[in-house]
Amino acid sequence: MSTTLPPEAAEAAARTREEVCALHAELPRWNLVTWTSGNISARIPGTGLFAIKPSGLSYDDLTPQSMVVCSPDGEPVDGDHAPSSDTAAHAYVYREMPEVGAVVHTHSAYATAWAARGEPIPCAITAMADEFGAEIPVGPFALIGGDDIGRGIVSVLRGHRSPAVLMRSHGVFTVGRDARAAVKAAVMCEDAARTVHLARQLGPVEPLPAEHVDALHDRYRNAYGQRSSDQ
Amino acid sequence: MSTTLPPEAAEAAARTREEVCALHAELPRWNLVTWTSGNISARIPGTGLFAIKPSGLSYDDLTPQSMVVCSPDGEPVDGDHAPSSDTAAHAYVYREMPEVGAVVHTHSAYATAWAARGEPIPCAITAMADEFGAEIPVGPFALIGGDDIGRGIVSVLRGHRSPAVLMRSHGVFTVGRDARAAVKAAVMCEDAARTVHLARQLGPVEPLPAEHVDALHDRYRNAYGQRSSDQ
Amino acid sequence: MSTTLPPEAAEAAARTREEVCALHAELPRWNLVTWTSGNISARIPGTGLFAIKPSGLSYDDLTPQSMVVCSPDGEPVDGDHAPSSDTAAHAYVYREMPEVGAVVHTHSAYATAWAARGEPIPCAITAMADEFGAEIPVGPFALIGGDDIGRGIVSVLRGHRSPAVLMRSHGVFTVGRDARAAVKAAVMCEDAARTVHLARQLGPVEPLPAEHVDALHDRYRNAYGQRSSDQ
Amino acid sequence: MSTTLPPEAAEAAARTREEVCALHAELPRWNLVTWTSGNISARIPGTGLFAIKPSGLSYDDLTPQSMVVCSPDGEPVDGDHAPSSDTAAHAYVYREMPEVGAVVHTHSAYATAWAARGEPIPCAITAMADEFGAEIPVGPFALIGGDDIGRGIVSVLRGHRSPAVLMRSHGVFTVGRDARAAVKAAVMCEDAARTVHLARQLGPVEPLPAEHVDALHDRYRNAYGQRSSDQ
Repeated sequence: MSTTLPPEAAEAAARTREEVCALHAELPRWNLVTWTSGNISARIPGTGLFAIKPSGLSYDDLTPQSMVVCSPDGEPVDGDHAPSSDTAAHAYVYREMPEVGAVVHTHSAYATAWAARGEPIPCAITAMADEFGAEIPVGPFALIGGDDIGRGIVSVLRGHRSPAVLMRSHGVFTVGRDARAAVKAAVMCEDAARTVHLARQLGPVEPLPAEHVDALHDRYRNAYGQRSSDQ
Repeated sequence: MSTTLPPEAAEAAARTREEVCALHAELPRWNLVTWTSGNISARIPGTGLFAIKPSGLSYDDLTPQSMVVCSPDGEPVDGDHAPSSDTAAHAYVYREMPEVGAVVHTHSAYATAWAARGEPIPCAITAMADEFGAEIPVGPFALIGGDDIGRGIVSVLRGHRSPAVLMRSHGVFTVGRDARAAVKAAVMCEDAARTVHLARQLGPVEPLPAEHVDALHDRYRNAYGQRSSDQ
Repeated sequence: MSTTLPPEAAEAAARTREEVCALHAELPRWNLVTWTSGNISARIPGTGLFAIKPSGLSYDDLTPQSMVVCSPDGEPVDGDHAPSSDTAAHAYVYREMPEVGAVVHTHSAYATAWAARGEPIPCAITAMADEFGAEIPVGPFALIGGDDIGRGIVSVLRGHRSPAVLMRSHGVFTVGRDARAAVKAAVMCEDAARTVHLARQLGPVEPLPAEHVDALHDRYRNAYGQRSSDQ
Repeated sequence: MSTTLPPEAAEAAARTREEVCALHAELPRWNLVTWTSGNISARIPGTGLFAIKPSGLSYDDLTPQSMVVCSPDGEPVDGDHAPSSDTAAHAYVYREMPEVGAVVHTHSAYATAWAARGEPIPCAITAMADEFGAEIPVGPFALIGGDDIGRGIVSVLRGHRSPAVLMRSHGVFTVGRDARAAVKAAVMCEDAARTVHLARQLGPVEPLPAEHVDALHDRYRNAYGQRSSDQ
């Protein structure tokens, strides 16, 4: 499947592969993935292509070169491995949501537990209001293969403040303007899923009032982090 | 107990010992074992023998040479240590299930919690459908010593899609065509046990419809991973 | 924002930055923080200033020099980064509680779960009596920005034995005479939150009688640790 | 407090200090301790003395020389630090139970949760039958200082198969013929506490029938591990 990219695209692809490969280390670090599950992809600037994790490789064995470059319709165009079995879903998101620069998928345990019940995570703590600006919503059940998962993700996240969606009985997809932002959303999604799970185990939990969620989310988007940082 | 294996068997045994020893590192890594508990064995190709963890050694102290080579009836035939106290169960599985190349045993906490209640883990998330193709079933209570545990494992797993069985009030046994596959099944079993446990803590969880389980399992067996990967 | 501190203040600031930076490693070590969340500050002796974590930096990237020196009203006076978005709350505590030498803030999961329910952690185990001398109390809900969070912390902790407060639907703030003591309080708060959470999951838990709490707390304050230890 | 031990006792003390210091690394490794909590002691062969962890030191800072040698009545007789605040309890156990060579104390979270409810851990899984041969019993509430804790431990463990006792609203004490055995009991106690906790969260759990517990415990004591191993 290995094809030759034009020189400029090859350079951009090399940079994206490097970044996507490095960020994969965050998934086991924050306990979001088990064995070879989970994957990250990011658009390759100026090309219409994206780079994604190869299918079924151990996190220990990932290298920048093993990341697979795919076309907008999810076909591998550069790389020595088969791309993630979730590639079609990533590709669909890129085709439909031009503002999205990266996609992350995990089966992180607490978030997937909410997904198994088909229950959104109520926005009950300020850290959720900061990052998600809303409850974390649930998307439809969809079988892998074809565009069903991608369609489900886009149908929920388009126009939603939350960069994370719990796909019913499956797991988490997050989006971001770049790979670091999408990974952060996946990390914070599991943290929120766990904290609210723990809270709910010993009694009812009230969501924050909408005006507080709005105020917190707005402030966080505009005042947190270093001025030119992606945080 | 150390006997001399014929040269070809000795070479094959050395390779299997190396692989089995290395894979033991995955058990503490994925939090499946405590202190010296748990064990992995694998057939030694072309010999009728298998290699298994020594009894009661710390995971830090395992070396390829410390793995014990056993005969089909579970008697140690090469090695300086006594074999795992679960050796008879492994041997029984090898005698009765020729398609099995490796066996793993753990007391991983979430799976053992289901085993303590004698409750199968319902197939409620797509990752379970992928790996197990069914609920993870419960086997009978059986005392260690003799063939009772092995018989219990085989009675459940023979003809079952699931490579994992929860032995009642005891722990997990998994099988695979090779050691990596059996270890993967043990890792994914604990992950499934944990996720469905968490889901069930806050409300009822519906199993996936059988046709979805079938479709997911079939696709996973045939399309996931690299073409010649052991996945 | 970088200004020149007078030489003596600069030396004191360098020592405090070093200590505050090093102690930040304890927060991920004890699983109190996720991604860039959480922060520690400490007074710079003899200056009226304090040093605090920069906003939104990864724990991996913290250096002593990246710690931000702030004035008593929370304005950055030395450093290359913007200070933590929680700086106003730290500053308020320093202005109102002269006995406090350091402040720590986390969203540690079990403690934040109690905070999400607005429920104090009952003093049900001897380790809580030792460290906290009381239940761990809940403070009001307060929006970030301005002095509301600081006022909430001070209104609860002033005159309270507990060095920790659960801010409603938000997280934990702890205080100490020095940074190590405040970090210890944050670590022990999560440990207490977790243990009592686990205890309550399977049945009711009685708080310790007040006279036992008093005796334990008094002994711990006066007899534990090495004679000149900060312990 | 540093006194000169006679040469033979000094040599024996050096060996015990080395062993006790090294085994302390197992407590954080298996998540049994938080900050400076927890401690291990062991008899110094041929001396009537025992070596124990200093009070309030970080696990990172423990050295063999920092272990404190104490007399049978718990007074420090060699070393530069104050001994653990739990020293009186260890000393009482050594005075009353000559078969005990080592004592371990932790506040490990799941076990302490059972202790907070004052509920013994039912012997519901085969690994508990192996190691404990019985439920893990609960001892009385006792204040630190004086012999009350030691008396409580001995009143429960004398003549009991279990090497572990849950001291009411406090934590775990385990005993063993040597330090490794007592540490193993502390590790397995938390593992059992966690697994049975998880099992009980989703339904009732039956204890194993007494004759199975007897058979498993007897076999484990006599057949597990390497012939001359301490396992």
